[in-house]
Amino acid sequence: MPHFLYGRWPVLECLRAGRRNISKLLIAESVQEKGIITDILQLAEERGAEIRRVPRRVIDDLALDGNHQGVVLRAGDYPYIDLDDLLEISSARDEKPFYLVLDLLKDPQNVGVLLRVADSVGAHGVIMQERRGVGITPAVVSASSGAIEHLAVVQVNNLVNALKWLQERDVWLVGMDIGPDIQPLDHVDLDRSLALVLGSEGEGLRRLVGETCDLLATLPMRGSVGSLNVATVGSIGLYSAWQARNWQGWEQKRAESPRQT
Amino acid sequence: MPHFLYGRWPVLECLRAGRRNISKLLIAESVQEKGIITDILQLAEERGAEIRRVPRRVIDDLALDGNHQGVVLRAGDYPYIDLDDLLEISSARDEKPFYLVLDLLKDPQNVGVLLRVADSVGAHGVIMQERRGVGITPAVVSASSGAIEHLAVVQVNNLVNALKWLQERDVWLVGMDIGPDIQPLDHVDLDRSLALVLGSEGEGLRRLVGETCDLLATLPMRGSVGSLNVATVGSIGLYSAWQARNWQGWEQKRAESPRQT
Repeated sequence: MPHFLYGRWPVLECLRAGRRNISKLLIAESVQEKGIITDILQLAEERGAEIRRVPRRVIDDLALDGNHQGVVLRAGDYPYIDLDDLLEISSARDEKPFYLVLDLLKDPQNVGVLLRVADSVGAHGVIMQERRGVGITPAVVSASSGAIEHLAVVQVNNLVNALKWLQERDVWLVGMDIGPDIQPLDHVDLDRSLALVLGSEGEGLRRLVGETCDLLATLPMRGSVGSLNVATVGSIGLYSAWQARNWQGWEQKRAESPRQT
Repeated sequence: MPHFLYGRWPVLECLRAGRRNISKLLIAESVQEKGIITDILQLAEERGAEIRRVPRRVIDDLALDGNHQGVVLRAGDYPYIDLDDLLEISSARDEKPFYLVLDLLKDPQNVGVLLRVADSVGAHGVIMQERRGVGITPAVVSASSGAIEHLAVVQVNNLVNALKWLQERDVWLVGMDIGPDIQPLDHVDLDRSLALVLGSEGEGLRRLVGETCDLLATLPMRGSVGSLNVATVGSIGLYSAWQARNWQGWEQKRAESPRQT
């Protein structure tokens, strides 16, 4: 099934990653060929995509309500990988496994933010429950600013089985939760083979998922509202784990020119 | 000018905070009176609001495109405070000043997330540039899950002047930025009178704002995408600063029952 990815960075990252079949790039007639648009056009041509200038309303339709910035890319399915392949990634990098696990998150924005942070901290992969939760839709690709195109993502039928599979391979499962008796995240040694497990918006971790975790941890909160969005909790959790790893791999990246959105 | 706040938690928090004039609570006919709706109705009655059951499409109109969950509250202006009053808050709590400064952020979602985190870490106030940036709209209230209703927010005409005013009062200004020569945030001593300064999406800190800061700090990144959303950067920055303060004020909050969304 073709996907219509939209937005300048998401489209560029999909072309850069080169993991999906690309058939067509549509650009609104009003968009000028400069900056990132030049990069997109050049890469699309290299990848053999048909490039078409179209009225903006065509793009509006294909991007649904998304913030498309005049650019849509018709791309093939997202290249999920298998659970078995996940461990290869960390061993190839000679690093301790570092995964993010999402238990039935519902909001594409939250999933996208978390995937972008997972990319930023160099997580080796993301495991998501198939069905019921959010999949890798164009809205998620956009919310991740295209980071998902570079990540290793596994979709599983049964998250508890996947967690047990990881446990058998000495991956330590830390679930984020809230409650008076749960220890704060910064008291937990995160510098080990680790999967950070996040529950859904509103409901948190499902009971069996929480019980399968080796440990539950919480973020301190002292506000009037007394809760945080799961994307915030997960972002801080991922950064804490990377900090515990002494920012492994950062120095190599530092000289490259970053961007900010 | 009346504001139509929408969503169950935002409406409840506005009523709880009791800082705005409240005139009317509208609830969709289909919404059942249980759980948080019961709390909302009870508080609205205590506050003397007119309560009306209306068809859902009336609520749709008033909440614009927002996720209103069948609830809209007609409320007066947001109660901004003056810069002069800001320092009183920290001294009343006997804590070192801890502020968040937003330089022309454009996305209500980002502003809302940051305000929610500012509440969660017990920041003493938020300073925002008037005009051009986002104000406290109903969309921001919702994105903050209502946390903004409890926060002290200052709107200023000239952010650089406000920063200098803080500097004269021994508040240390740390701007979040990216670049190869900027030191990582965890090398910075954040346990002092502090204002964390965030730039806008895409453009970052304006030149004069960045130059006024006492120090620039960055978050490490090693991903393919090489950038992070400002809400993510600010959330991690605020939590780092609170951690440096030894989670001051957390113990008192811990026993209370939290919620998660």
